[in-house]
Amino acid sequence: MTSCLGYGAREAYGALAPMHLERRALRADDVAIDIAFCGVCHSDAHQINNDWKNTVYPCVPGHEIVGHVTAVGPEVTRFKVGDRVAVGCLVDSCLQCDSCAADEEQLCVQGPTATYNGRDRQTGTLTFGGYADHIVVREHFVLRVPDTLDPFLAAPLLCAGITVWNPLRKYGVGAGTKMAVVGLGGLGHLAVKLGVALGAEVTVITSSPGKVDDALKLGAHRVLLSSGAQAMQGAANSFDFILDTIPQRHDTNPYLMLLGRDGKLVVVGAIDLLEPVHGGLLIRNNRTLAGSLIGGVRATQALLDFCAEHQVLPECELIEMGDINEAFSRMKKNDVKYRFVIDMATLREPTAR
Amino acid sequence: MTSCLGYGAREAYGALAPMHLERRALRADDVAIDIAFCGVCHSDAHQINNDWKNTVYPCVPGHEIVGHVTAVGPEVTRFKVGDRVAVGCLVDSCLQCDSCAADEEQLCVQGPTATYNGRDRQTGTLTFGGYADHIVVREHFVLRVPDTLDPFLAAPLLCAGITVWNPLRKYGVGAGTKMAVVGLGGLGHLAVKLGVALGAEVTVITSSPGKVDDALKLGAHRVLLSSGAQAMQGAANSFDFILDTIPQRHDTNPYLMLLGRDGKLVVVGAIDLLEPVHGGLLIRNNRTLAGSLIGGVRATQALLDFCAEHQVLPECELIEMGDINEAFSRMKKNDVKYRFVIDMATLREPTAR
Repeated sequence: MTSCLGYGAREAYGALAPMHLERRALRADDVAIDIAFCGVCHSDAHQINNDWKNTVYPCVPGHEIVGHVTAVGPEVTRFKVGDRVAVGCLVDSCLQCDSCAADEEQLCVQGPTATYNGRDRQTGTLTFGGYADHIVVREHFVLRVPDTLDPFLAAPLLCAGITVWNPLRKYGVGAGTKMAVVGLGGLGHLAVKLGVALGAEVTVITSSPGKVDDALKLGAHRVLLSSGAQAMQGAANSFDFILDTIPQRHDTNPYLMLLGRDGKLVVVGAIDLLEPVHGGLLIRNNRTLAGSLIGGVRATQALLDFCAEHQVLPECELIEMGDINEAFSRMKKNDVKYRFVIDMATLREPTAR
Repeated sequence: MTSCLGYGAREAYGALAPMHLERRALRADDVAIDIAFCGVCHSDAHQINNDWKNTVYPCVPGHEIVGHVTAVGPEVTRFKVGDRVAVGCLVDSCLQCDSCAADEEQLCVQGPTATYNGRDRQTGTLTFGGYADHIVVREHFVLRVPDTLDPFLAAPLLCAGITVWNPLRKYGVGAGTKMAVVGLGGLGHLAVKLGVALGAEVTVITSSPGKVDDALKLGAHRVLLSSGAQAMQGAANSFDFILDTIPQRHDTNPYLMLLGRDGKLVVVGAIDLLEPVHGGLLIRNNRTLAGSLIGGVRATQALLDFCAEHQVLPECELIEMGDINEAFSRMKKNDVKYRFVIDMATLREPTAR
């Protein structure tokens, strides 16, 4: 076991503060990683506040991890010391069930091991995330960061990115797809960029006239104001695919109405009850309301490679580790364009202010 | 124009009674059909009662029509006098839009012409359905009834059958599919038979212990009582495909929970608001809640051919035309196993009682 410096919460709604924790000794198929950057996800805030009633404390969040390899176990074949690597939401799974065999480890039938607030499959000990100086992860779950991908900007791809990428790929979004994105936050802004890079015709649907310019700046081809009844009616039946990133209870019927034949509305943010869906809206046009949960290791690697090749990069604000509590407050007020990334060098050596 | 004897309603909640109506003179691509049998669909009752607030009176329902050809227009190539034919829910569409080009005329972008309570695309006159001695239909929308398919039993395939067949085919139900059917009425009982014939492992989900025997008699491999919390919990994540035929507002969450990875719940009956769906249930396992609306001409023909080849036949009760009002009352009380079919010979010559 090695001693590790992390940043975590000791109780619900407690401020995050430095804490010492332990990482396991390297197993034969483990990779040890020094963490350079860690993205800040809404899940991090939910988990430390015990919003899902399943948090075990102390809780060290962070599952958008980028760093470099410092050591490898004897059975590791794909990585060597010095490699630039990344870790997302998963650090283990059974690797034997149908889901794992289908490269969808996030849907492991036995339940995957979450990067934090999970349980080590061998020892049962609590997992700690990327708000820390280093981490030890099973090789299968370690991703390669291409040289041409800025490691700071790569971080949000590990959760926000794969969350939107997986449904885009699953539903065949590409040239000619009439696609819309609802919600222009960490997930939504990446969906716009990825959709455009895949060749889709991308519309941002927003209730805020103030976001029109932002949407166009991100590359959206047009913006549809959901507050405009006439515009919404005029767009009825016109989309093939809508990605709905709204992170709380909301009414999906106005978006379902926009789908043409066999159109898909995919919810990736709302892990809550949705307002009652109209069965007639689903039946007409054979519409689909689906959910999607992050993505597997292979898809995440494909995303990193795609973003490197096409230079699809999240919009990020670099923060210091000591700023995390303020960052959570700002995130709650949607005061972030579009993702915070922690410079983990500031964990050990905070900048004097 | 030819004079036609039909059976229809003159006002909402009025009893159905004989009435004279007119069928158009044969157009170049029209087929004239003497009607032998007409199935009784829940939609028929809804439409005559103006439940959907769009009924134009007089209303002559019926869209599960089987009969034989008595005349054809000069451009008709696929049918000749004497052929045994059928007509379903559609009698026309634009035949030019993407949906029509994709053989999904039921989703015609301009709106298809319904067999009854529709509007003739050329004259704008009201369409009348199959509770009548004959009908005139554009060739494209006329189906061939294979010789080996009992014409009496073929009738319910035209609406109930295609409503369940289309999603079974779209979602690839076949050997190895773990499929469930919710609701064991006209649609559900056909879904069981078709699912079994396609090679799926079919479970009926019902709240009524009294339906267990019926379900097994229809060929279901097993029955899951939705009232049994433990059994439902035990079946979590275990189905690939669930067809939900419940015809009114209901809670889909207990069924969504039963879906495994990428599992689909397809609603075909509830044209109403559904109880709030939990977004987390959709996201976990990448589940899908979809709707499906009848099917196109090509798929309906494929269904008739499949049912002839595999002798998949609905369970029907033959009634006389004069029994229709009582049949609607019995249908309302679910007192039908599983579909009424009217012997249209009794329209002109009622049996003495």
